[in-house]
Amino acid sequence: MSMTIGVDIGGTKVAAGLVSEAGAISHKTRVPMVSTGDAEQGFDAVEAAVAAIFDDAPEARRAVKGIGICSPGPLDPMTGVVLNPPNLPCWRDFPLAAATERAFGVPAHVDNDANAAGLAEVLWGAAVGYRNVFYATLGTGIGTGIVFDKKIYHGRTGSAAEGGHVTIDYNGPLCGCGKRGCIEALCSGPAIAARARGMLDGTAHSQILDLAGGNVAEVRAEHVGQAWRQGDALAKRVLEQTAHLLAIWLGNIVDVLEPDIMVVGGGVAELMSGFFPQILAELPAWSIIPRAREIPLVMARYGADAGIAGAAALCG
Amino acid sequence: MSMTIGVDIGGTKVAAGLVSEAGAISHKTRVPMVSTGDAEQGFDAVEAAVAAIFDDAPEARRAVKGIGICSPGPLDPMTGVVLNPPNLPCWRDFPLAAATERAFGVPAHVDNDANAAGLAEVLWGAAVGYRNVFYATLGTGIGTGIVFDKKIYHGRTGSAAEGGHVTIDYNGPLCGCGKRGCIEALCSGPAIAARARGMLDGTAHSQILDLAGGNVAEVRAEHVGQAWRQGDALAKRVLEQTAHLLAIWLGNIVDVLEPDIMVVGGGVAELMSGFFPQILAELPAWSIIPRAREIPLVMARYGADAGIAGAAALCG
Repeated sequence: MSMTIGVDIGGTKVAAGLVSEAGAISHKTRVPMVSTGDAEQGFDAVEAAVAAIFDDAPEARRAVKGIGICSPGPLDPMTGVVLNPPNLPCWRDFPLAAATERAFGVPAHVDNDANAAGLAEVLWGAAVGYRNVFYATLGTGIGTGIVFDKKIYHGRTGSAAEGGHVTIDYNGPLCGCGKRGCIEALCSGPAIAARARGMLDGTAHSQILDLAGGNVAEVRAEHVGQAWRQGDALAKRVLEQTAHLLAIWLGNIVDVLEPDIMVVGGGVAELMSGFFPQILAELPAWSIIPRAREIPLVMARYGADAGIAGAAALCG
Repeated sequence: MSMTIGVDIGGTKVAAGLVSEAGAISHKTRVPMVSTGDAEQGFDAVEAAVAAIFDDAPEARRAVKGIGICSPGPLDPMTGVVLNPPNLPCWRDFPLAAATERAFGVPAHVDNDANAAGLAEVLWGAAVGYRNVFYATLGTGIGTGIVFDKKIYHGRTGSAAEGGHVTIDYNGPLCGCGKRGCIEALCSGPAIAARARGMLDGTAHSQILDLAGGNVAEVRAEHVGQAWRQGDALAKRVLEQTAHLLAIWLGNIVDVLEPDIMVVGGGVAELMSGFFPQILAELPAWSIIPRAREIPLVMARYGADAGIAGAAALCG
């Protein structure tokens, strides 16, 4: 049976796992990433993670047909070169795919995490059997991927599918990217926390505040979710407003792409999953596509392992 | 030399022309469309238009390898069935492609006008040689098309690429589609006229008002363009604001699609062409794509004949 290794690189750690042809992950490992040293030091972490899997599963040395890697961008997925990621200062124009191929003697592929995670959902997860797939990771940031006919859509230079920075309110709150009213600035975890903090005016009682230790400045999206599950009215309003904005955003995405399915993953997706019915009910009012209401909105199969699965999917 | 016939159906007329392999149009004809009668009466206009071309160019009877048709939607481009267009009440679930094939004995293809016009630009116009193409007709409405590798991107049911209804301001002006802040509600011809009317407060002198016969209610986008060409300051402000909004919208499009080129046609595109430098200067601030500034924004090759050329391109 052929297998692949998926490597998920972050600013502080490298996670990796052995992935079967059916998308099952085993032999997971995690090593610290040194992102502030030189390029070779950064690559040492990748080598160590892969080597740990081979040590743990010696049979994989022969069975592995490729290594896929998710890396912070910008990067060029066609050449496997990491360009100049703000979160990985060690790598500038670093040929990550070529270095990996040299180190392990198998083909290597590099892409960004949301593209890769979307592909994993198409190959093994919630989007199996769908041709035109829109995928989004909703978390601290909002990353998206577009997969057509089991192939990641890359656009002109490999930077396409930055749906998290589609603005729905050009006068809205400033996003980290410099635009205003991006859905990331409105519905990411920090944006949900900020919405809750804005609504905690000091008079209304809310369990959100209790969960944050009575300190408004400490409110996080998780507190809002927890308070909502406990029946808190303010938390419900915060999440309903978030769902409303997600429906508007998905209406824009549907108007451009008319996908066959929308798959969402990440912590905020889990938090919002109780509001999918509201999102689906509102979406047709925010799309001109006649049959928009038929498009499913579903949770991703892969949660915290989306990066490993996605990276492995790149070898598919 | 093989040729095609392009048929462009509107609510009140059917235009058609003979189109060469190089996209040159000849033997143009135009017949009235009866859109309120029964389906056969509506189809009579299509038959009459094609017959007129054959009468005018008898050699075309043997050379024509296919007939392409642009029709108001919604329609199913895969089956060539027109579903239930508000502007063509005569046709409901009408098999337009099949009827055309039966009448003329050659393959027929049906799609909406913006998709088709985008394809014509890829095959013969401003987007020759580009892989990922975003096309927009800016006029009374805003229609868009997406063409990947010389193929129209249709999405799940053939309704994709409704980029004119991407909202950039969900609290903005109501669009005819029911959404708020769609770019069509902000930058179509009628929206530009409305912007000018709003800025003509009765005290500032503007040639816009003179061109509209002194009647604010009569102001049209053409008056704004004419006044701007004559150096009118208010007209310049109206069009600069329009360009600003188009840059925000194109930033969203670029963030999702990262196209290789953006091609725009239609009366408002011509009107705004003097502001392309402003749009291109502002766009990078409204896109997270690192190399967004490299993406060309160009006028379409086809103007008033975009529907005929586009229809013919469907046979390519």
